Amino acid sequence: MLTDALRKYLQANRDRQLQELFELLRFASISSQAEHEADCLACAQWLGDQLRQMDFSVELKPWRKHPVVVARYEKARPPAKTVLVYGHYDVQPPEPLEQWHSPPFEPVVRDGAIYARGASDDKGQLFAHIKAVEALLQTEGELPLNVAFFLEGEEEIGSPELEQFITTNADDLQADFAIVSDSDFFAQGLPTITYGLRGMVYLELTLQGPAEDLHSGVYGGVVVNPLNALAKMIAAMHDESGKVALPGFYDDVRPISEAERRAWAELPFDEERYARNLGTEPLGGERGHSVLERLWARPTLDCHGIVGGYQGPGAKTVIPASATAKLSMRLVPDMQPERVVRAFEQFVTDHTPAGVTARIKVNTKARPVLVPPDSPAIDAAKAALTEAFAAPVALARNGASVPITELIQRILGIEPIMMGFGLPDDHLHSPNERFRLEQFYGAIAASAAVLKNLAAL
Amino acid sequence: MLTDALRKYLQANRDRQLQELFELLRFASISSQAEHEADCLACAQWLGDQLRQMDFSVELKPWRKHPVVVARYEKARPPAKTVLVYGHYDVQPPEPLEQWHSPPFEPVVRDGAIYARGASDDKGQLFAHIKAVEALLQTEGELPLNVAFFLEGEEEIGSPELEQFITTNADDLQADFAIVSDSDFFAQGLPTITYGLRGMVYLELTLQGPAEDLHSGVYGGVVVNPLNALAKMIAAMHDESGKVALPGFYDDVRPISEAERRAWAELPFDEERYARNLGTEPLGGERGHSVLERLWARPTLDCHGIVGGYQGPGAKTVIPASATAKLSMRLVPDMQPERVVRAFEQFVTDHTPAGVTARIKVNTKARPVLVPPDSPAIDAAKAALTEAFAAPVALARNGASVPITELIQRILGIEPIMMGFGLPDDHLHSPNERFRLEQFYGAIAASAAVLKNLAAL
Repeated sequence: MLTDALRKYLQANRDRQLQELFELLRFASISSQAEHEADCLACAQWLGDQLRQMDFSVELKPWRKHPVVVARYEKARPPAKTVLVYGHYDVQPPEPLEQWHSPPFEPVVRDGAIYARGASDDKGQLFAHIKAVEALLQTEGELPLNVAFFLEGEEEIGSPELEQFITTNADDLQADFAIVSDSDFFAQGLPTITYGLRGMVYLELTLQGPAEDLHSGVYGGVVVNPLNALAKMIAAMHDESGKVALPGFYDDVRPISEAERRAWAELPFDEERYARNLGTEPLGGERGHSVLERLWARPTLDCHGIVGGYQGPGAKTVIPASATAKLSMRLVPDMQPERVVRAFEQFVTDHTPAGVTARIKVNTKARPVLVPPDSPAIDAAKAALTEAFAAPVALARNGASVPITELIQRILGIEPIMMGFGLPDDHLHSPNERFRLEQFYGAIAASAAVLKNLAAL
Repeated sequence: MLTDALRKYLQANRDRQLQELFELLRFASISSQAEHEADCLACAQWLGDQLRQMDFSVELKPWRKHPVVVARYEKARPPAKTVLVYGHYDVQPPEPLEQWHSPPFEPVVRDGAIYARGASDDKGQLFAHIKAVEALLQTEGELPLNVAFFLEGEEEIGSPELEQFITTNADDLQADFAIVSDSDFFAQGLPTITYGLRGMVYLELTLQGPAEDLHSGVYGGVVVNPLNALAKMIAAMHDESGKVALPGFYDDVRPISEAERRAWAELPFDEERYARNLGTEPLGGERGHSVLERLWARPTLDCHGIVGGYQGPGAKTVIPASATAKLSMRLVPDMQPERVVRAFEQFVTDHTPAGVTARIKVNTKARPVLVPPDSPAIDAAKAALTEAFAAPVALARNGASVPITELIQRILGIEPIMMGFGLPDDHLHSPNERFRLEQFYGAIAASAAVLKNLAAL
């Protein structure tokens, strides 16, 4: 429960806290672009300074390209528990710049929303936690539990080798609870806790045919064309009902419960409007499952690009020596990436025609995540959200993968609380990214409330 | 028949003629590269000057990018016939330069062969005709028939709009015979007349799905992925026996005669060695036809590239808004490009799944060519080749398309004599292109002989 003092403090400090968020948003901390390495470092240092001023012990731990900010407050009265708060300070590139109505790194408020790259993903969300800590310290003189911040700078480049980081730094990250705020409400006005995420296997399948590219006039009709052969293999990966046709692919898929099915059916979701917004009617995918089931509880196989031959303008009559497909499979509980890779390898072995040889390169293996949705920690988060946003809380899954959550679960042994504060139309990764003021202020209140609620467990 | 005087002249002038070919080879007349436009023009002017010195009336007709050299000698004693000689002075880009053993535009002789870009394709071949004309004029004081040269500068960029050029300039190109020397012997020591070429339809098939690129985590499983759908359509374009599965595709295919089958079986062709050289065993393609039948007398459908999604290094989890395949079909007599396009359109209509829309853009339509292999003109060419190379002559087809030949046949109404002087291992379009000295000198003699033989018809 939030004290009156805290409510008043938040009300009185809105403008200053907003201006401080603007400072954070002005760093062009684009992790994928080498010329912004100094901006990433400056951003991490600025965050470290903010936390140091609030009695956190702060370390900027150098990692592959950009440091991880690890900050710990350990002054809560024993026997205090500890909560780990994850966020990322790096952002997507802002391009195409000409589509922005205001410059991406010069935040402004328009129509009740903060417009800037990173406003919602993820600076606004992580900064709300920092400002909640400030409000608690200013109004109560101490925090009700110990808090560890884990703020990484390589999320937008896929958090490479994050598992190694967490394993190496497990001591500094140990906690009783973990909050991950890098997601959104299911709909405006509907605070949401995410309790499931899909995993992923991303790989490249290459078929090698002739030793060199060949002229399709001189040689067309006597060699196996690797592009045609690859198309045939990709086509065979789905059956007529839209199911993935790899043998054993669905063996470990956990069916959703009747309770989940009912709960999802009650979420405010208009399939027709959804399809219209995507510009594709009818929708596709596996038959016999609702849209939310297909997104949250059914695995997929998608092709993301095919390399080989000629992609330029006009015509080139080449039979390529080889062709490569970039493919990913989204995994749902309880699928295991290793088993999926083996099933894919077996499928390729069974379907590679004479005249080409196949090789597979696995880029990414991420496990699906499922958090028990009825734990005391989740209840604490639900109560905090309801208090801050004056609305009931939805439980939802998400079709995407957030590698950190699975690592918190598997390596640190903590069931993460995924409480995000964005809205579905925040234009993440796109021009005119925004974060609504009511979401920012609500997030600060919700964070303060969840810290208190968790402390009371 | 070659006179002794002519034979002696050719023998005595070998070195000078070779040095003149070197001059021609030094022009970096790369038609596809804008920075070589001046080189192309200079090359055309040089050729024009050569022909002007031999009493030809010469015009450099401006065309899209590089001029066509049209030169006519009309002083043969009436009632003289006219032969049109086609060649192209433009060349392929020489890249990758580091793989050349000597610079591509600094011709040298090594191991009995001229090494330079364009040596075989097509400067060496066209220049042999010019030097044959010189030899006839020098030894006989006149040509036995009128000769028109048609030397284009855009063959290596696909001779775009060549049909329009020929239609517009038909008066200047009219002739009784036509010689096209832009091909090769079936094997070393086996002079070859090509009497059939495949045609081609080249097109782009685009499937449009969602309005924008989508994140495969957030949306994977509920939209039709255009890349997966395209793979499925391409896969359906062949049946299990390697046949193209477009309805009606084979309706107009003319079966080869028993005589042709027997003749082809007698050509020196080692399938095992052929496959080993290509680095792909076993060979592919349509079952039930020999390699030469598949190359020369059976149509194909090949994919040359697929555009859409992500082709860069690493992973991107994108469901592309659209995907495009570059496809070509090689056509054999008596297939009609227009009918093939209609069959393709019908197939696409029948196979486009709900959730995507298809569009087709046709880039190229070229008809197949079949020349009666037993005409007096072909006999004249065979006799000339036998005389010049002291060997029997093979009749062969070729799987590639040479647009000029079909235009000569259809627009000018002349059955072209395809007598090429290259060898199969001349490294056309590749580093270290070469033209063997014996082929160059033999080609000059063969050209002189065929001009005399045709004059006698």
